[in-house]
Amino acid sequence: MQPSQLIDTAVVFKSRPAGEPSRENFELITSPVRELLRDELLIRTLFTSVDPAMRIRMREGASYLPALELGQVAGTYSVGEVILSTNDAFRSGDVVWSFSGWQKYPVVPASLAWKVDVSNMSPSVYIGVLGLTGFTAYVGLVDIIKPQHGETLVISAASGAVGSIAGQLARASGARVVGITSGAERCSFLRKLGFHETVDRTSGDLNRQLDAACPKGIDGFFDNTGGQIQLSVFDRLNLNSRVALCGQIAEYNDGNPTPGPNLWIAISRRVLLKGFIAGDELPRLGTYHRYATPLVLSGELSASETVINGLENAPDAFAALLRGDKLGKVIVKVGG
Amino acid sequence: MQPSQLIDTAVVFKSRPAGEPSRENFELITSPVRELLRDELLIRTLFTSVDPAMRIRMREGASYLPALELGQVAGTYSVGEVILSTNDAFRSGDVVWSFSGWQKYPVVPASLAWKVDVSNMSPSVYIGVLGLTGFTAYVGLVDIIKPQHGETLVISAASGAVGSIAGQLARASGARVVGITSGAERCSFLRKLGFHETVDRTSGDLNRQLDAACPKGIDGFFDNTGGQIQLSVFDRLNLNSRVALCGQIAEYNDGNPTPGPNLWIAISRRVLLKGFIAGDELPRLGTYHRYATPLVLSGELSASETVINGLENAPDAFAALLRGDKLGKVIVKVGG
Repeated sequence: MQPSQLIDTAVVFKSRPAGEPSRENFELITSPVRELLRDELLIRTLFTSVDPAMRIRMREGASYLPALELGQVAGTYSVGEVILSTNDAFRSGDVVWSFSGWQKYPVVPASLAWKVDVSNMSPSVYIGVLGLTGFTAYVGLVDIIKPQHGETLVISAASGAVGSIAGQLARASGARVVGITSGAERCSFLRKLGFHETVDRTSGDLNRQLDAACPKGIDGFFDNTGGQIQLSVFDRLNLNSRVALCGQIAEYNDGNPTPGPNLWIAISRRVLLKGFIAGDELPRLGTYHRYATPLVLSGELSASETVINGLENAPDAFAALLRGDKLGKVIVKVGG
Repeated sequence: MQPSQLIDTAVVFKSRPAGEPSRENFELITSPVRELLRDELLIRTLFTSVDPAMRIRMREGASYLPALELGQVAGTYSVGEVILSTNDAFRSGDVVWSFSGWQKYPVVPASLAWKVDVSNMSPSVYIGVLGLTGFTAYVGLVDIIKPQHGETLVISAASGAVGSIAGQLARASGARVVGITSGAERCSFLRKLGFHETVDRTSGDLNRQLDAACPKGIDGFFDNTGGQIQLSVFDRLNLNSRVALCGQIAEYNDGNPTPGPNLWIAISRRVLLKGFIAGDELPRLGTYHRYATPLVLSGELSASETVINGLENAPDAFAALLRGDKLGKVIVKVGG
């Protein structure tokens, strides 16, 4: 097969949004696939990830990830099937995880692709629960919060991709898990996942709800939102509590970051706060797979996916994700 | 000797200040010394400590230290000579460190007093450089910042008691030390202590001065002030930087704490922040003494004391301390 016989489809970044992004900031383009150089893979994407953190890359200038350039393919990582390989370690038919984005036929260096085992599971699990999403939950819990039996642990954006897994992993470690989310439907979703208490930030006073859900205060906080939720949780942190700073979905659309909590509480209560990016810990991804795969197969750890069909719908799914926490991981299924 | 033949003098807490405290919030009282119970020591105080953190105890309600009650003796800890003991481990003439405050003849339980070696040094060093002050600098550096050779370390309220020691200890570990203080005199004082760069917060733009003093950004931050200085330093934190949250002298007089930094920087740059109270680590005070005593004797670690004469002047010294960082540790010498 000649790659140039294939017509690729990709979603590229067209313009920087001032506030909320929309499909207008993206463009669907088609082009012939190029020839492969040495040690490259041509992949047919099966599933690709929709990540709130991509909003950061849409700003001018660098952050922890490089800024997206106009015209560049959007997205973060995908799972797909190798259809052509110029590297001995891969062959046609292998299923691989790679840092390729919203693109049907990406060509990636073999050094940036990893084979995954899909004999018992849908390839989509490597986007969500066994992908960087689940790994992020794992790193925040294991490296920073270290939940102890009986401690109270609060998770913001709890019904989201990372939050829903963090809650399930924390529960497995014996902590009492409180999830903050929006709306009755998501609260009910969290209960089904095994969260002990839920706080609905759209219904009634957040502080009073937190007091009711956390009568013994808060020992660990897995923060995905920042903003007012962060301020309210900070006031309730216990002595020697730990805060895993994972994301600020409440603020990604806002060019002017809001003030954070006064850190006196951190002094008087000896709080540990740590910002982290799970990508720094990629060498430990295999450790996570060995830990989490049996939990996924047994059903103890739910994948919780929201699957969108078609690359062309990725921009809308992304914009919707930033407007509120979704049920689990948002994944785009890339059509045949 | 009968204790009741001695007339004690003490500074007690009279009223809660709304903003800046003054001598009006305290009262000097005299009373006969009571008889000793079993396992108690009657001490003649030689030197007593003046601590900005006492401002916290003057507020209603508990913090990391219990609130001062009206009528209670003010102060925190002292060094003095035992003049009467009902405990076998102590005898008249011993010099001890104890949690007694602004009082000439305190009676303390033997279990809350520690003998100190004053054969080569003034007893005052156990209030400052070898006391909780120096120990606080040590704990923040060793447990949290862990300065590495060539890293840039910023210390706020650098000419103060804790800051001046933190800077000297950090320099000894090979870091490039930048001190933030107020006024040319204090900058010059810091240079003499071995600080590599100084920032005068009262002269010119703080951000521009920090940029000039820290061309490679900031790897470690020993924060004694909070407030605007904290916000400016946060913007310049490097990847994997560490922040030891020690105090908020800029805010102690303010009932309404100011907002803190937005914590996005902590995520994108993987910052570790940790609030700490050296008192939690008291069992390691001996380790610190073994480490720091030779440095003090050799002159490599300067005691940097500001000595005030007379218990009656403690309230003014305390109020002045809260109005700006002083040169080293403020100590009250208690008269004959």
